[in-house]
Amino acid sequence: MKKIGVVLSGCGVFDGAEIHESVITLLAIDRAGAQAVCMAPDVDQLHVINHHNGEEMVGEKRNVLVESARIARGEIRDINAITADDIDALVFPGGFGAAKNLSSFAEKGDECDVHPDVMRLVKEFAAKQKPQAALCIAPAMMAKVYESENDKPTLTIGNDKDGISMIEAMGSQHQECTAKEFIFDEKNKIVSTPAYMVGKSISEVAEGIEKTIDKLISMI
Amino acid sequence: MKKIGVVLSGCGVFDGAEIHESVITLLAIDRAGAQAVCMAPDVDQLHVINHHNGEEMVGEKRNVLVESARIARGEIRDINAITADDIDALVFPGGFGAAKNLSSFAEKGDECDVHPDVMRLVKEFAAKQKPQAALCIAPAMMAKVYESENDKPTLTIGNDKDGISMIEAMGSQHQECTAKEFIFDEKNKIVSTPAYMVGKSISEVAEGIEKTIDKLISMI
Repeated sequence: MKKIGVVLSGCGVFDGAEIHESVITLLAIDRAGAQAVCMAPDVDQLHVINHHNGEEMVGEKRNVLVESARIARGEIRDINAITADDIDALVFPGGFGAAKNLSSFAEKGDECDVHPDVMRLVKEFAAKQKPQAALCIAPAMMAKVYESENDKPTLTIGNDKDGISMIEAMGSQHQECTAKEFIFDEKNKIVSTPAYMVGKSISEVAEGIEKTIDKLISMI
Repeated sequence: MKKIGVVLSGCGVFDGAEIHESVITLLAIDRAGAQAVCMAPDVDQLHVINHHNGEEMVGEKRNVLVESARIARGEIRDINAITADDIDALVFPGGFGAAKNLSSFAEKGDECDVHPDVMRLVKEFAAKQKPQAALCIAPAMMAKVYESENDKPTLTIGNDKDGISMIEAMGSQHQECTAKEFIFDEKNKIVSTPAYMVGKSISEVAEGIEKTIDKLISMI
């Protein structure tokens, strides 16, 4: 059975993994007859956002691995225990968690850092030419990882001008895309789709993610 | 546009709304061309469970409405502001939240209480003969609401013997069902599917929920 690593970044669009994108990813993997291997880093979230009123819950702390386990129904591993030999493909759902917990893109833009285990795993995938997918804002984090690689990928985060400038500043190419489609970088075997960066409904986002996961799995 | 109320009970299978069931419900509603109206009660959760190790996080408090907002991407209303006139159909995803936060079924079984606004809204739906759906463990809560009605529904929670006994003790009939199918009570216009009460994979659960939501919307 093909094993697809799913890197989660918390549980909730404003401070963690985008829940719809994550669940649609898991469903698409299962429907393709592959096995999802959920993982997350064992670190505190940047912060906790009250998703009802949009305000920061000052003083509250939550752990990325523990909150990600909500989406994974408890079946999740610390990313530090996973190597590229354990899995056949890798996917990063979006949500601010990818830009706040897996990287510091939300705060620092093209000067951001990437969590060391995310950096390591993506570089292992690049070295082995194994397929990867990045949804929503996660491609910005990918651009940072590939900044130090020779072959820079073509990625999409939709049509956000500031985001596009920063991706290009990190050396990657950007191509505009709707939520229902994906961009395929054949050389680096990276598929990306903008999902809720531009999607107006869960159906639109689902269509793009389903196509993305099918493309990802076809490359294994 | 048909409006479907989706009653959430937190965010995570062990202490709130089951996330996969909730997202699959929202996707099925959108794909059917209807509008989801997410709602939850503004109360504290019974407790908070660490979904990574399964243990209670003693001393931690979370609010059902605020956590449910994670699944709803912020678009959620207090259930106390919703009446049966505002929506055309009602659906309860599962997860322990239905048995811990919307009712006390997990603690008290057939002697449980139901949150007053959930009780009120379901009784309004019963009085107006509007269609409802209950997934996973949520049918047990429905049995409690209908205990004081003349017409008792036929429901399913799969094949869990203790749960079935308690549903029958509250006066409802129980019919066994797989995760891929649903049980339809024509008289009360209630559809139920056991979802993760028996489902072994997200695909199985999705198949049953998609059929359930299609049936629900066809009754409007």
